[in-house]
Amino acid sequence: MPEHTHGKATSNGIPLPDFELPYPDKPEVITENLMKLAALTKDDRARFLKVNLIRHLHQFITETSLTTKEWMSAIQFLTATGKQCTDIRQEFILLSDVLGVSALVDAVNNPPMEGVTESCVLGPFFTEDAPDVEIGESIASEGKGEYMYVEGRILSSDGKPIPDAVIETWETDESGYYDTQYDNRDKPDCRGRLKSDKDGHFAFRAVVPVAYPIPADGPVGDLLLLFNRHNVRPNHLHLMIQAPGYRTLITSFYPENDKYLASDPVFGVKHSLVVSLEEVKNEAEARKRGFPKGDTFKLLKRDIVLVPEDQAQKRYEENAAIFSKNALKA
Amino acid sequence: MPEHTHGKATSNGIPLPDFELPYPDKPEVITENLMKLAALTKDDRARFLKVNLIRHLHQFITETSLTTKEWMSAIQFLTATGKQCTDIRQEFILLSDVLGVSALVDAVNNPPMEGVTESCVLGPFFTEDAPDVEIGESIASEGKGEYMYVEGRILSSDGKPIPDAVIETWETDESGYYDTQYDNRDKPDCRGRLKSDKDGHFAFRAVVPVAYPIPADGPVGDLLLLFNRHNVRPNHLHLMIQAPGYRTLITSFYPENDKYLASDPVFGVKHSLVVSLEEVKNEAEARKRGFPKGDTFKLLKRDIVLVPEDQAQKRYEENAAIFSKNALKA
Repeated sequence: MPEHTHGKATSNGIPLPDFELPYPDKPEVITENLMKLAALTKDDRARFLKVNLIRHLHQFITETSLTTKEWMSAIQFLTATGKQCTDIRQEFILLSDVLGVSALVDAVNNPPMEGVTESCVLGPFFTEDAPDVEIGESIASEGKGEYMYVEGRILSSDGKPIPDAVIETWETDESGYYDTQYDNRDKPDCRGRLKSDKDGHFAFRAVVPVAYPIPADGPVGDLLLLFNRHNVRPNHLHLMIQAPGYRTLITSFYPENDKYLASDPVFGVKHSLVVSLEEVKNEAEARKRGFPKGDTFKLLKRDIVLVPEDQAQKRYEENAAIFSKNALKA
Repeated sequence: MPEHTHGKATSNGIPLPDFELPYPDKPEVITENLMKLAALTKDDRARFLKVNLIRHLHQFITETSLTTKEWMSAIQFLTATGKQCTDIRQEFILLSDVLGVSALVDAVNNPPMEGVTESCVLGPFFTEDAPDVEIGESIASEGKGEYMYVEGRILSSDGKPIPDAVIETWETDESGYYDTQYDNRDKPDCRGRLKSDKDGHFAFRAVVPVAYPIPADGPVGDLLLLFNRHNVRPNHLHLMIQAPGYRTLITSFYPENDKYLASDPVFGVKHSLVVSLEEVKNEAEARKRGFPKGDTFKLLKRDIVLVPEDQAQKRYEENAAIFSKNALKA
């Protein structure tokens, strides 16, 4: 509080609680006092989350008799994870990913719905600075990998095309790196933003993504070593689709036959997101699609189905009710 | 991984698991896969902690149906907490403190033992750079507050004095700030390191600590506002005592009659750590103790009893066994 250091330290202005709190001489009193203090939290949802968080945190400590040394390691781990974060690297999302937290949050929020494209984890490599591209243009600069053409339609779950949906997409180059992993990144590459046309159509040129290791040079990399888990994600193309009135879809398509599909370190693969790439060997077709060289490219053809936001919210709430019932039973 | 960006991204070298992992199409499969993968973790303790952590993290998410927005807020909160940490400020310890985690870890690791001085949370203001002081010298520079003289003996739980015990102590000045909270800190103040003499005696001059707010200008301050909890710690003097063969004692003494004792935001106060300060009004006595001015000071007289490390460890293990049994029953 550098701005206060000329006067007396001042409190946050919140009064003392008006109920009794015994001194926490015993460990269970610490937990009980926190539960009593939760009554002060005015927002119902925040209070519910706090009570649940405290219960699980405290149970974790007592059930494991966590040692002071282990606690200090956890503090240092979290601090190092925070220090690793930059505008273009999010180590806490990576941590959430490898612990299955991101996948589970995604599953809880976007339960499967008949005919709707399934969602998938965002991952730590999304950036805000993807360039706008026109339909048919390339998101990858020349030389970044094997040519891939991606096309399809953005549809509503009632079958109608969605025009002007904003599609953001990002992927690795053929070396297995996102642009943000290069020291000399001066502009985005292998990422782009486009809009579906009046018939819901979209298309863009890209490169065939390759399996790649998630960053091993930070705290999360060390954690995977401790857990003796490999760090290679199966090849995939990230997509985020936004359209007014629809639940934003964050997903990925996974080309089939990658040996890492089943043991994806971030638990992102679902059966419905595994796709076939068609090999096209036709020079005229390659030119027509805008590829500058050769006669060969891979074709990824896939429609993407969004669900209206109110229906997605209703489905979340039904699903939440099921989870709560299971929690009560457990 | 900047050092790798000239070749192909390389994995951490750990092979694929040699067992089946179904695609996590359903949320429960995410949890099940993580539990299966835990078998790869070689260290028994690390595996136990991992399984327990995953179970509680995943239960927290499903029981609360945590929303994507809440998850992102948590990611941003943890990132901001990491960014707030410096060599002289530990926001993750502060977070652990206000959630009762630090107090609970302390309670689990240092259960009370007959006649032994009880422990207390370390807090986020300990630094490594406390200056060495001789017995009777002051840890606070002149003008930092009301005079206080602290004295006692470091004893073993069998009653024998412990010579050469290293005592580190730190406290706020009369404005309620630790030295590290001043922008212009050029050297440590209100902290010091001394050794007990051959009879286990220690003594030092200090100032009467005052109740003070824990930092409100970071993410943890915001969290307390959300929880509608005040942020004022009761006045206290921190102590850490180390002696070969003994369990290191981290504790605090809390002068009585502070209105914040019962609702300490970090759950640190235990009955046995609340102390009386004797007011001494005697000019000759003040000079003899080394106070340069006036005729008045407060006297804090207290012996500190350490327990041999092997006995502390045995007590931890007995206690851990009780906690595990309770966990199994729950």
